[in-house]
This record gives sequence, C-alpha cells and structure tokens, in this order.
Amino acid sequence: MTIFEDVESEVRSYCRNWPVVFDTAKGAELWDVDGKRYLDFFAGAGALNYGHNPEPLKQKLLEYLSRDGITHGLDMYTTAKGEFLNTFRDKILGPRKLNYKVQFPGPTGANAVESALKLARKITGKEAMVNFTNAFHGMTLGALSVTGNSMKRGGAGVPLVHSTPMPFDNYFDGKVPDFLWFERVLTDSGSSLNDPAAVIVETVQGEGGINPARIEWLQGLADLCKRHDILLIVDDVQMGVGRTGPFFSFEAAGIEPDIVTISKSISGYGLPMALVLIKPEHDVWGPGEHNGTFRGHNPAFVTGTEAIHRYWSDDTLEREVIRKGEKVEEAFNKIVADTTVTELTAKGRGLARGLQFTEHDQAGKVCAAAFERGLLMETSGPDSEVMKILAPLTITDDELDEGLEIVAESVKTVTSGA
Amino acid sequence: MTIFEDVESEVRSYCRNWPVVFDTAKGAELWDVDGKRYLDFFAGAGALNYGHNPEPLKQKLLEYLSRDGITHGLDMYTTAKGEFLNTFRDKILGPRKLNYKVQFPGPTGANAVESALKLARKITGKEAMVNFTNAFHGMTLGALSVTGNSMKRGGAGVPLVHSTPMPFDNYFDGKVPDFLWFERVLTDSGSSLNDPAAVIVETVQGEGGINPARIEWLQGLADLCKRHDILLIVDDVQMGVGRTGPFFSFEAAGIEPDIVTISKSISGYGLPMALVLIKPEHDVWGPGEHNGTFRGHNPAFVTGTEAIHRYWSDDTLEREVIRKGEKVEEAFNKIVADTTVTELTAKGRGLARGLQFTEHDQAGKVCAAAFERGLLMETSGPDSEVMKILAPLTITDDELDEGLEIVAESVKTVTSGA
Amino acid sequence: MTIFEDVESEVRSYCRNWPVVFDTAKGAELWDVDGKRYLDFFAGAGALNYGHNPEPLKQKLLEYLSRDGITHGLDMYTTAKGEFLNTFRDKILGPRKLNYKVQFPGPTGANAVESALKLARKITGKEAMVNFTNAFHGMTLGALSVTGNSMKRGGAGVPLVHSTPMPFDNYFDGKVPDFLWFERVLTDSGSSLNDPAAVIVETVQGEGGINPARIEWLQGLADLCKRHDILLIVDDVQMGVGRTGPFFSFEAAGIEPDIVTISKSISGYGLPMALVLIKPEHDVWGPGEHNGTFRGHNPAFVTGTEAIHRYWSDDTLEREVIRKGEKVEEAFNKIVADTTVTELTAKGRGLARGLQFTEHDQAGKVCAAAFERGLLMETSGPDSEVMKILAPLTITDDELDEGLEIVAESVKTVTSGA
Amino acid sequence: MTIFEDVESEVRSYCRNWPVVFDTAKGAELWDVDGKRYLDFFAGAGALNYGHNPEPLKQKLLEYLSRDGITHGLDMYTTAKGEFLNTFRDKILGPRKLNYKVQFPGPTGANAVESALKLARKITGKEAMVNFTNAFHGMTLGALSVTGNSMKRGGAGVPLVHSTPMPFDNYFDGKVPDFLWFERVLTDSGSSLNDPAAVIVETVQGEGGINPARIEWLQGLADLCKRHDILLIVDDVQMGVGRTGPFFSFEAAGIEPDIVTISKSISGYGLPMALVLIKPEHDVWGPGEHNGTFRGHNPAFVTGTEAIHRYWSDDTLEREVIRKGEKVEEAFNKIVADTTVTELTAKGRGLARGLQFTEHDQAGKVCAAAFERGLLMETSGPDSEVMKILAPLTITDDELDEGLEIVAESVKTVTSGA
Repeated sequence: MTIFEDVESEVRSYCRNWPVVFDTAKGAELWDVDGKRYLDFFAGAGALNYGHNPEPLKQKLLEYLSRDGITHGLDMYTTAKGEFLNTFRDKILGPRKLNYKVQFPGPTGANAVESALKLARKITGKEAMVNFTNAFHGMTLGALSVTGNSMKRGGAGVPLVHSTPMPFDNYFDGKVPDFLWFERVLTDSGSSLNDPAAVIVETVQGEGGINPARIEWLQGLADLCKRHDILLIVDDVQMGVGRTGPFFSFEAAGIEPDIVTISKSISGYGLPMALVLIKPEHDVWGPGEHNGTFRGHNPAFVTGTEAIHRYWSDDTLEREVIRKGEKVEEAFNKIVADTTVTELTAKGRGLARGLQFTEHDQAGKVCAAAFERGLLMETSGPDSEVMKILAPLTITDDELDEGLEIVAESVKTVTSGA
Repeated sequence: MTIFEDVESEVRSYCRNWPVVFDTAKGAELWDVDGKRYLDFFAGAGALNYGHNPEPLKQKLLEYLSRDGITHGLDMYTTAKGEFLNTFRDKILGPRKLNYKVQFPGPTGANAVESALKLARKITGKEAMVNFTNAFHGMTLGALSVTGNSMKRGGAGVPLVHSTPMPFDNYFDGKVPDFLWFERVLTDSGSSLNDPAAVIVETVQGEGGINPARIEWLQGLADLCKRHDILLIVDDVQMGVGRTGPFFSFEAAGIEPDIVTISKSISGYGLPMALVLIKPEHDVWGPGEHNGTFRGHNPAFVTGTEAIHRYWSDDTLEREVIRKGEKVEEAFNKIVADTTVTELTAKGRGLARGLQFTEHDQAGKVCAAAFERGLLMETSGPDSEVMKILAPLTITDDELDEGLEIVAESVKTVTSGA
Repeated sequence: MTIFEDVESEVRSYCRNWPVVFDTAKGAELWDVDGKRYLDFFAGAGALNYGHNPEPLKQKLLEYLSRDGITHGLDMYTTAKGEFLNTFRDKILGPRKLNYKVQFPGPTGANAVESALKLARKITGKEAMVNFTNAFHGMTLGALSVTGNSMKRGGAGVPLVHSTPMPFDNYFDGKVPDFLWFERVLTDSGSSLNDPAAVIVETVQGEGGINPARIEWLQGLADLCKRHDILLIVDDVQMGVGRTGPFFSFEAAGIEPDIVTISKSISGYGLPMALVLIKPEHDVWGPGEHNGTFRGHNPAFVTGTEAIHRYWSDDTLEREVIRKGEKVEEAFNKIVADTTVTELTAKGRGLARGLQFTEHDQAGKVCAAAFERGLLMETSGPDSEVMKILAPLTITDDELDEGLEIVAESVKTVTSGA
Repeated sequence: MTIFEDVESEVRSYCRNWPVVFDTAKGAELWDVDGKRYLDFFAGAGALNYGHNPEPLKQKLLEYLSRDGITHGLDMYTTAKGEFLNTFRDKILGPRKLNYKVQFPGPTGANAVESALKLARKITGKEAMVNFTNAFHGMTLGALSVTGNSMKRGGAGVPLVHSTPMPFDNYFDGKVPDFLWFERVLTDSGSSLNDPAAVIVETVQGEGGINPARIEWLQGLADLCKRHDILLIVDDVQMGVGRTGPFFSFEAAGIEPDIVTISKSISGYGLPMALVLIKPEHDVWGPGEHNGTFRGHNPAFVTGTEAIHRYWSDDTLEREVIRKGEKVEEAFNKIVADTTVTELTAKGRGLARGLQFTEHDQAGKVCAAAFERGLLMETSGPDSEVMKILAPLTITDDELDEGLEIVAESVKTVTSGA
C-alpha cells in the first residue's frame, strides 16, 4: 500500500476507509490481495448494478476483444454502437413508448450532465438553471454549479452562479405545500429569479442522503415545468438502469423528461459510458458542437448491449429489485425499532436504501464496523449522516441476508457504544 | 447505417465524413462491415498512439478480465492500480527525474483539465486563468472556458469569462517579441488583467491547427510563470505519451510544469483513462474534494502498465517517432514544393503534422479525397484549414509510405481542381 | 414638449404619464408652464420628504452660494461637510445611540448600494449576497443584481448572478413560518446556497409595492444574520429620513444594521447626495478604494445640515408622519370598504402607503384619473398593481385631505367603470 | 478637522494629501478656513472646467432657486430641462453636425457608463466588452469591470469578468503596429475572445496617466469597430466639455461614436449631472428600463444651459484651451530639459497635461511640495507616477504662470533631493 501513499494524490478518498488492496471480484463479492472476501453493498456507487464482472457480459466482452473488434471509435459508426442503439431502441425505449434521440457525450455522468445543461441553454436561449437542495450531478464546473454539497462546491475556485436552488421534496417535512416557493418566484415578475432554461432533478438523491421524491411530487414538478415552459432534465446517472426497480427511475411517475442523463451502470460491467437522451424536437445540436475523445468506447457498447438483452428483455429484474428492496426496508425497519438509544430513519426506494442517524458520525462508524466484518458500505448526505446501501441488483437472497445481518450487528455495536 | 441516422443525436460528427460502419481494427488498419480496409492516419485523435488493439496489451487485458480482476474500483486501492503507479514512477517519472503526485481525476482529458484548473485555483486562491489563442482543452464548462474555438465556446450557453487569451507562439509570424503583451499586462497594475492563478498551454496545438511552440518559447513561458508566481499547467492530453517523440512533450524544453494533464493514449488501448500530475508541494487537495465514478478503470490500468513496459523501457519508440516525423516532414515539404497553384504550409513536431491550405476548404476536400482512397485523416484549425496527420507511432514504414502517397495524390487532385 | 420627444431618449418614463412641462414648485405643489397647479403625492419618489424648495433650506442654500462657498469638493475637507458631519453625529446618531462611520459614496442611492455591497464583500471575503423578493436597490450592475424587477434586470445584458433571492415578509400570506427556507438552506451544507457575505433589505419595499416588513420579522432577520455571521445591510434610501416616521426606518425594530444606505431626502432639497453608514469595526476601506467625482456636493451638505436642524431637533416631525400616515390609512380603509366591485388591499407604514388592485391595470388608471384632477401619484409593484402615496412629510392637513378626496373619486371612477 | 477623522470613513482620500478645511472658492482659487489661498491646478478632477462658482452661471442659479424653479424632477418634463436640451442641440450638436438622442442616466459619470454598457448589450445582444489598458470608467460594478486599476478592481469583491483588455495607443512605445493584437483576435475564430458588443475608450486617459491617443489611432479604432460591427463608446466624462480644446474630445479625430458619455463639467458649476448621447438608430431603450432618482437635477440644467451659452457660442474657449495647453507644454518641456538627475516625460493634450517620473514616488512628492507652496495638483497613473495638471480652462495667464512656476520649483526641489 506504500505506493499509493507515496505516489497517489491526497484527493483519494474511499481507500482511506477501506485500507486494503483489492484484487478480484465477482457478483457481490470482492477479494483482496490476501484472499480475504468482502461482501459488496456499494456496487461501485451504483455503477455495478449487475455485480462485478457478470459472466454473460464478460463472455461477450472477451469475444469482442479477441476478434479485434474496434475498441476506440470516437463518434464513428461501428457495429458495436449500431447494435447498442438498436437494442436500446427496441428493448428499452420502444416498450416504454419513449421517443428519444441518443447522444454519447463522453463516458462519464459529468459529461452527460454538462451536455444536458449546454443543450438546455441552446434550446431555450436562457442561461439560468434550477437545481434542488442536496442535489449531486458531478464535479466539472457546469455539473458542480447544480450540485449542493458545499465542500465540493468550494473546490470550484470560482463563484458557481448560474443556478438557483429550490427545495427538494419533503425539505420541510411535509409542512409546506409542494412547490410553494418555486411556483411563487416563477409567477412573480419581481422575485429576482433568473428565468430558468431547465430544472435538473434526481428522482432519488443518492449522494444527497438517499432522499426519494414522492411520485406525486415528480408529477407536480413535470407539470410545473410544462406550465412554465421550463425544460425538465432527469439525472438518472445513479438511479437509472434499474436501481429503483424500472429501467428509468422516472417511469413510476409516468413523466417524460425533455432530457435524461444516464451513465454508471449503462455498460453493465463498470466500463465508462454515458448517454444523453433528448426528445427529438430538442435535438438542436450542431455537428461536433459537443465532442470528446472517449464517446465511442466500444467494449462498453458490447457489454451494454448484452446487459439489456440479459436483464431487460422482461420485467424479472424490475420485480426482483422491488422485492429485494422491500426486504431491505423490512430489515431497516426492524433495526430502527430495535434501536432505542438514538433515533434512526429508514428511507429509500428499490435497492437505493439509507439509514439516517440523528448522531451524524454514527453512520460512518457503522460503515467502519461493517467493514471490519467484511461488508462494504458507504455514507451519504451533506453531513455523511446516512448509511447507504447500493447492493448489486443481482445479489442473492443469501448474500443480502448475510449483509443485512452485519448491518444490524454494526448498528447495534455503534449505537450501544459497545 | 439507418439506425444512426434515426436514433443518434445530430451532434455526431466524424461519422459524417466517413459514412461507413467500422467493425474491426488492428495496428494502423481498420475494416468496415463490408471488409473494406482503411489506413489510419488519425489514431483516435491521438488516443491510439500504439495503434488499434496492440497485441501485447490485448493479451494482458484478456488475461486480467478472464481472471476476474476487479474492473471498476472508484478510488479504491487495487493491484492493477498499484502496478500502474509503480511502473509509472519507475519507468516514466524516475528516469526523467520528475517528481509528481498522481491524481486519477476521471477517465477523460476534460476531467483532467477541470481538476487541474480547480487545483490551481485552490493553491493560489485566485480565480483567473490565462489560456492561449487556438487552445483546445475540452468541452465541459471549465475546460471550455480556456478553449479558443468560437463555435465550441458558443455551445456553453453561459458567458465563458474566467480566462484571458494571450497570443500563442508565432501568433504574429515572429514580428513581435515573445510575451511582449503578456509580460506587459502582468507588470502594469493598470492593465485590468485579472491576476492569473495559472497558465494552461499545449506544447503543440493539435485541434488549433498543429501549431508547435518553439522550445525557446516554452522555456520563456516557464520562466515568465516563475517570475510572476503563476502556476504552469501543461495540457499533454494529446501531445503526451510520445506523440512528439519523448513521453512528455515538454521534455525537449527541459521545463517542469507545476501541473500536467495526461489522457488519450495513456491506457495504450483506447480505454478511457486520465491523469493529473501534481508537484508534491501543490497537492493540497482534501480527500474527495474532486471525485468521479470512473476514476478507477482497472482494465485501463492493466493496459497502461503494459504499454509503459513495452514502449517506454528504452528510447526506441522516441527515436522512431522522431525519425518517422522527419519522413512525414520530407513528404510534406515535397508536396508543398510540388503545389504551385496555391500556397501550402507544412508544420508540426514528431508525428503530429499538418498541412495548411491558403484556400481553407481544400483541407477538408483533401481529407475527403483521401477517404475515397482508403485513408482516414481529419482537419483542424479554427477554419478547418489544416490537414492533420496523427498516425499511430507504431505504424510501419510501408504503411506510412502508402498513406503519404495517398496524401500527395489527394492534394494534387484537389489543388489542381481535377 | 416637442424638444423632449425629438431629443430625449426613449428611456424617459414618468413624463409619459404626466405630459406637461413643470416649471415651479413649493411644498406639496407644482405648477406647469401654463400656471396649472398640481398637488404632489409623489415627492420625487421619496426624495422630497420636506416638499419642494423648503424655505429655510433655500435661504441657507442661497446664502452659501452667494458667498461662494465651495461647491464641488471631491472628498476634500470643507466647512460645509464638517458642519454636516457634526450635525449628523449630534442630532441623528448620538440621540439614537448609534455609532457609525460615514462614507460619502457618490450622490445617488445606487452609489451607496454599490459601496455597501463592495464593502460587505471586502469585510467577509465572500462574494455571494442575499436579497429579497421584490427588492429594489438601483440600476447599476451591482445594485441591479440584488433588485427583483425582471424588466429592469433584463436591461443588464449580462447574467445577474451573485445574489440569491429569499422570500420577503409575508410572501406566503403568513402561511409559512418566517425564515423557514432561508434558515434551512443556511444550515444545510448541501443546499447549494453560496455562503452569503450580507443580506440587503428594505424595511418597507417601495418600488416592490409598498410592502412593510413586520417589526418582528425585521428583528428575526437581524437575529438570523447575527447567528449565521452574515452582515445586515438596510437600504434606507427611500424609507429613511422620516418616511415611515423615525429618521431611520429600522428604529422601530430596535435593530442595528452593520451597514446602512441613505440617499434621496438626505439633502432635504432634492439635491443629489448619499451616505453609507458603517459600523466602526467594519470600516476596512483603504483610502480611495471607492471614489467618485460628486462625493463632495457641498450645497447638498448645506441644505442637509439645515434639514436636520429644522426637522430632527425634536420628535415633532416623526409624530406628525405617524399621525398623517394613520389619516391616510383611514382614508384607504374607507375606500377599500366602499369598493365592492373589486378587492383592494391597503398597506404601508408612516407616509409610505399603497392601495393594491386585484385587477392590476386599475392602479395605473387611478393614477391617470388623479392626474386629470391635478394630483401626482405613481404605481409600484412588479405588475404596477399598487397605487402609491409618498406625499411630502410636511404636507398640510388640508392638502392631504384634498388629495385623498381626489384619490377616492379616482378609485370610484375607475372601479365603477364610469 | 477632528470631525472628519472621527466620523468620516477611512475611504476618504484627497483630504489626506491636502489636510486643510476649504471654505470658499472662485475661479482658479480656493481659500481655507484660515483664509489661506490655494491655486487650483486640479479643478475637481475635471469637473470644474470653468473654475469654481463662475459668476454668470451663479447668477442664473440664484435666480432659478429664488423663483422656486423646480429643483428635483426625476424624468419629468421641466422648463429647465427643455432649455438645456434646446441649447445643447442648437449650440453643441447642430454646429458639429452630430445627431444624438440624449439620455439623463443619473447624475454621475458612473451612471452614464453603466447606462452605455447596458444599452450596448441590449442593442447587440452580446455581453462581452473590450476596454483598454489603464482605462478608468468608474467604481460601480459595471463601470469597474472596464477599468484598469488593480487596487480599484480589487474592491469589487466579485470577479470582474465581462471585458477583455486591449492595448491602448502607444502601449508598446510604437514598436508594434496599431491594433495588431485586437484585429488578430477579432478575425481569428479560434482566439477565444468573446465577441464584443462594444469598445469603450477615453481619447486621453486621465486617471490612467494622462495618455493621449493619437488622432490616427482613434480613427483606426473607429474604423476597426465599423469593420467588425462593434459599437464604439467614447467615455468623454473627463476629457469632454473642452478639456482638450473642442467640446467633444473626439472631434479632432472626426469620428462619430455610437454612444458618448458626458459628466463632470457638463453642469459647469460642479453640480452632479451626466448625459449619455445615443445615435438615434441605437435608442432602443424601453421606457424606464434604466432609471434613477436624480436624473432630473434641474439646477444643473440651468447652469449647464448658461455654460453652453457663455462658453460654446463661438470657438474662443476652444482656441484658448489649445493656446494655454501649449503654454503648459512649453513649461513642461523646459522642466524636462532642466531636470538632468532623472528622466521626465511630458505628455497630454489641451489642458490635460502630465509629467511622468521615472522614479515613481517623485510625482507624489512634487504634488506635496506644490501644496506647501499653495498649489493643488494630483498624481495619476497605475503607480501614481504622473504629476497631473487639470487647471480650469478659464484660468488667467497670470495664474497659469504662477502655478507653472511653483511646479518648476517643486520638481527641482524633489528631484535635486533638496
């Protein structure tokens, strides 16, 4: 581990909580160089929804690489990209009656968010954005300007000024009608709100603390955007690709965003890849107006295509995610009930689940206790006050039970001060 | 090809000039779905310095994937990352007597540039930047603010305001002393120049038109930065990893930038990967102050490690690049001499070479004529007035000769109006 | 009038509603070139709190000009400035136990606001501001960025980005606890609110529609600022100098702002003059860090000094303003009660009074009807939906009755559609 | 003087160099409270071109005030404003064949500059500006963004970002062709220059160090603006109203700016007043889109009207200014020739004259030495390295001789170290 401490920048972070050197991984399990096994309730921060190195995708990937399929293709037409687009259209968009043009904006979520913001500004001719409290959209300058976390914002080094925050769902514990403030400043021509090009929203805020927006709130937001001629961008980078159950997290609300960003699990194998989905009437990009070297990462197209075939040809996975999510919910509810020394709050949707601690630092302590017991979990929330579970969607029931048991033990140990 | 026209966004660009579907690739060659072969003088815009799917790297990659080495690792410690860092330190930094901390900022050049700018602002507490005319640093909001191209800047949708342009080397054809304007506004407290945190520079501007800065200009710039307490960021995303001969393009000038950005060819296989190199005294990042999902793309570490072993254990490749570059230069000089109907200018360094056309649109026409003859080349420059060669560094002499022959024919055809 | 239409810019505004040429004025009366008399319920938008050309001030002014007292003095020491400062300290600050340093920032309210914002940023090292919905602080770029009106903001031509709006008192008709949103985003480190240097507030919003903040709201705001280490700037340009009764409009709340801006009526004679009051510990200006040609407008110091002597040596004026304000309130309440065809709302404090119309355009029609009857009044509010009274504080009871009678008639005529 | 030190903000500046209390003034003379006389080579930083309290203007002013002419008129039509507009059109614009609409933007130069910038942005729909090195345009946020001085810029507290500096005339001592850099970045679509709405320029930079732009440079600039469709704003706040000879300082160049800002001496009496002159086709303001409380300062209209009658009915004053300017030039040349211990440079135009010191701090020392001898002068330039003369245009030859004698003595004393 010396090499990392000697050579890698101080910016490194997760490794500080998990000070081992990982070597191999499969499904919901990782092994370090000493052969010690870890159960994974983190899944690459949501980039490994099908677990590590899923076998069917691996076979397709090895095959493609072996036959010298083109690896790096910029935005050239390739067979791998063509197959991905066909599959995405036929298996994802078509059955959901969604009509989107697909942009490959570069391989990260931040690339997708930057593209979405640029496009929304081009479509509308307006520069202002609206983001929500505790939003997380990425670390490049545009994405950071719509992100909530003050430590990360501080890193920008220039004022982040082109977006105005609005309260996310349930920001006032239900005591204030939805959109009261947002709607008021939009209709009041003296409010000083800069007229927004678009609203960017996560349906469940992951980094913000596993905050699910209610279905009716999302519908209200879509309606508000429509009435006020504001574009609606759903950032589905973390909650898309089945994390909450359906492929798109916004399906449950029956809304159709103008722009959608997708990344993390879209390749299915942890390979860098991202999409921007654009309603056809909004596809006003000029050729090359946004570009990037790694837009055509063909191995990711190959695994992404197979992932869709394998997991999204029917609704099995969606139902499984909902079922497992309820299992986690039950386990969390039991932990909440069993914990009498402090107040915990369980929250989440599908397999994005959080346990919020009144004593903020306990969330991190529980993760540390779990790591000692061989379980990988992380915290989220503005004060790292939420213990977060983002297990692979394909995790077995046994693994899930095993992990939830460790969680319960760890919570007990930490909250009891043992 | 219908699928692309039906489903992919209008932003797609290269594919418009090369309207075929590519399938496989090896070395300096690609084949489309119909089995037609293309010679590659583009090399993924500099991301494929060792050509497509180089066999030794491929074997290591297949091996790693086959044994379920961890694929996606955020910023966790992994064996693959450890090996990359060890190799990079021992084979790249050490022999050059360079001392840098390594940050993995996310897998694209834009991620690296955004990180570099944020870090420079944090180090200095200043917000302003200086960039050069015809610079290209990326398409995210921070990177775009230091980029020259007006069409790409226009895509931002918000004023790009935190950087002031200075003339790149030879901007006035040698008629004005180097840094006359830059130095003057720095020393004049009434100039209205916002005091810059850093200067960001490419040693050879690729997208800007294959403009090489003279060695003495680079040295002068480093000296100016030192005297005025400005950080020097060299963006070596395109010109690093041997494109101009040495591993780092700035080696020839004997300068030591404060921050270096690396991407494109660093994985050696076209896999997304990027680095920020930081002088140890400037590594003031807090843990997690910059993050991103795909910072730990382990397959790229594996191929990147093998690429260093294979190509940078001695100076063979460096000498080969210089030799082949001179070969291209000779061929270009001959074309220039043979072309009497219009004036051409040959420029470049190493294997980054350009041929500038007085009649701007001829550059694109030559590329189109070359494509008809099975050669992939692209234009660059603010008016796409430069025909650009970024051939794989590992291209064979026969392939190089073959391509240069096509170039000569294509130029002749276009300029003669045939 | 041809000359104005021929030569003056289209930006001219009030004159469009009052298309006559005014010539002389005294107290609450004006006369046009044809000798027609107008009663003034506008008082120079609050710049003529003692009416037009008040005789005692006029005598001092004539005397000073006659003896060739220095007129233009930049920020040189002059006897006129010294006397003003002495009088301001002894008669205004001292009796109120307020301790402020006095800056002469240039002769307009906008100069004062720009200075206040610059100073708050210098004191705190932060760039962000908080302003309130429907605020009005001026038309220069800094002042405009904290102003609410979208039409006026649109005139900036650059994004106005360094301030975030918060709801002014009663923005939700009392249904939401005070400062719920403001306090929440301040304490939530994930809210994306840029940490504010200062809050700028009017105690009664004049241009925003004659919206008085409740005393307890102002106290709550002062308390919030203190707890969160935010500077409190009260913009008393329009509501200061007795408009609401006491010299400073914030006196009733017993709060002590960190910075206060004063202009409009401070010279007492309609002569351009402005002040910034700064708590001594915050007077961190460097010499000349803010300057301006007309900071030392000595005739204004002369009339300003006499105004303080004449009107602020005891509490007679303050009590009179409150009494006359109640008189207006009663008259307005009667108009509201008598108007059954539409709903009117009376609001205001002291002699800043408004009558809000449910049918927005009726406010302007009432002003037009009043003008036909020889009474000058204007509208305010984001949709010009409020008929506004800013009569001279020194208006006689007869004049006030006369004007209120015209108002009642005009409202009746307009709302009855007669 | 205690009152100033006790109560006035630390921002006060001129008074620190002239620590006396001034009381009366007439023409080119001031007297302090002790009756000590001072000769004025400063003239209110150019606001007193006709000297202090010029008798004919004073009579008109007293008369107007005595008859209760309306003092404060917002943008209402008044007889005083009408007469000013008529006179300005007939005596100033007409004879010069200039066609401008007149805006009263508020009573200071900064108000005029802010208006001009807003209007230029509205006309063009572009946000970027170009300013020149060592420009001074005012201290409000918009005006400051086009101002050069780094200390004053630092006071803004937010990044000043919407303007790019270009070299003023002679910035490289004539070694570089005019507009080489400016023209190059305009025509190079890869330069990263934000496409400017307008250029703002002073024909002679006063605060910047009394730098006169050559006539041919101004003509070249006007031509460049025309060719590139950029609006030309001449800021004639300090150099207009005869300071360099003609009423408008740009007359000598025969150019017609799109927008002109005027203030300082336009009232002729040191009363706050400012104008924006707008080519009729550019008068796209909406009513009230820019406003302000003190736009209608009628006493200033009265004196401004009389000043035009008195001084601009023929070309006497213009010729006198040129003659006196040459007198100063000769005196300066003699001082330069007589000073052998250090190098001095004389510069200027008309009665805006400067003497630049190689040893920067000597300029301030000379002013201090002159003050001891009863002469008021100030420094300018980014390092206060220029001793500046802005004597009243109406100064007598005797007074001028007297002052120049003091200057010569003071320079001799300081440079000889006596």
